[in-house]
Amino acid sequence: MKIDAITTFPHMYDSVMGESMMRLAQEKGLLEFKAHDLRDWAQGVHRKTDDYPYGGGCGLVMMCDPIFKAVEDVLGYEAGSLPEGRRERGDDGATVIFMAPVGKTFDDSLACKLAKKERLVFVCGHYEGIDERAYSLADEVISIGDYVLTGGELASMVVIDAVVRKIEGVLGAEGGAETESFADGLLEYPQYTRPRSFRGMDVPEILLSGHHANIAEWRHAQSVERTRALRPDLLEQDNRPSSCASAH
Amino acid sequence: MKIDAITTFPHMYDSVMGESMMRLAQEKGLLEFKAHDLRDWAQGVHRKTDDYPYGGGCGLVMMCDPIFKAVEDVLGYEAGSLPEGRRERGDDGATVIFMAPVGKTFDDSLACKLAKKERLVFVCGHYEGIDERAYSLADEVISIGDYVLTGGELASMVVIDAVVRKIEGVLGAEGGAETESFADGLLEYPQYTRPRSFRGMDVPEILLSGHHANIAEWRHAQSVERTRALRPDLLEQDNRPSSCASAH
Repeated sequence: MKIDAITTFPHMYDSVMGESMMRLAQEKGLLEFKAHDLRDWAQGVHRKTDDYPYGGGCGLVMMCDPIFKAVEDVLGYEAGSLPEGRRERGDDGATVIFMAPVGKTFDDSLACKLAKKERLVFVCGHYEGIDERAYSLADEVISIGDYVLTGGELASMVVIDAVVRKIEGVLGAEGGAETESFADGLLEYPQYTRPRSFRGMDVPEILLSGHHANIAEWRHAQSVERTRALRPDLLEQDNRPSSCASAH
Repeated sequence: MKIDAITTFPHMYDSVMGESMMRLAQEKGLLEFKAHDLRDWAQGVHRKTDDYPYGGGCGLVMMCDPIFKAVEDVLGYEAGSLPEGRRERGDDGATVIFMAPVGKTFDDSLACKLAKKERLVFVCGHYEGIDERAYSLADEVISIGDYVLTGGELASMVVIDAVVRKIEGVLGAEGGAETESFADGLLEYPQYTRPRSFRGMDVPEILLSGHHANIAEWRHAQSVERTRALRPDLLEQDNRPSSCASAH
């Protein structure tokens, strides 16, 4: 998968994309990532990317001109041809994603859907907002939750992490993405490792029994109980996230 | 505010904490941040922090011993005294937060509540899980949304960003946190900046009128309409996030 991020803070990605699973996915050749500086498409000596809002108010709003130019350039379109040119050309294999609080709330099934794409292009705004007209470039507008962040960069990294780990081959034998929280609509059961007794707290006897069927049953019951106690909303059929296999 | 993160990937924070608002908050002396390597409290030559799960299954589970030692050391408690010792000492001014999918869903009102604390200590697990007994150290268990990430590091950065920008003095005159999405239970209205006409798309006339009262009314109507269309759940009284002033 190829992922681009268009941002005024390209270096924010450096340490996150260079560690752990993200680094491994790139080393394995399963992910190609590049953060682009939006200022490269801005005009003038100051390479300005934002300006005062029409109608007044505090904060600066990101201008649509550099964003259009950046998306055109990154996706290989002729300058000035978007958004119409893209519709004419048909599917170019890319999904252009704007990160914004007004977007669709990101969840496990959207991560599955995005993991099937060839290419994702993230456009990261700042909390003061992006000129509304730039959204005409968006295939998806995504929010990672009901809170406000300084910019879309961290939010895009969250989406990238959740998506990349679903690409086949990224996670090794050490951990599968199938049994974890949300994949089956339930929270994960409690986990324990050594030592068996720690500061007066013991590992549940059942986990030491060696009876695989009983352990599986106990774990499922714990998942259900935990979900009912902490997140009853996940148990309602309508809210149940679809599994990766059924998300398209 | 003082923030610590206990993690096996301390360098993941480098580029995020060193840019934009996070960097400014530290330069202004309003934020002191440190990422601690959990391996500093692990034993043996390999400084192992995880082990196989009791009861079988794939993935490794983070051991409670190094986590207890790290939290004790970072908060200045005697080795071996937690969790009981903390309760005995009363309020130590710190909020210990575990990032995990089973946690309370993070939102704007929780960000407001955390912004009033003196000190936050984040414990970041990996998706395979943390030994359940370690959660006895937690004051809060938080999830940033219904998706799974490779580790708690990115999730903690999201919480830190949303919280730090609510600390008085962090955001300058350039942008206030009061009029943005979620702060009043509504999505933000559309924003526009120059040019007035761009590729056939025009700025709404009302914003060029100069009538402040009419503009305010139009913006409010847009917020309501947008919220009704995109996030009707936010309009139900029960789901309405409380404002920062009322969140304790």
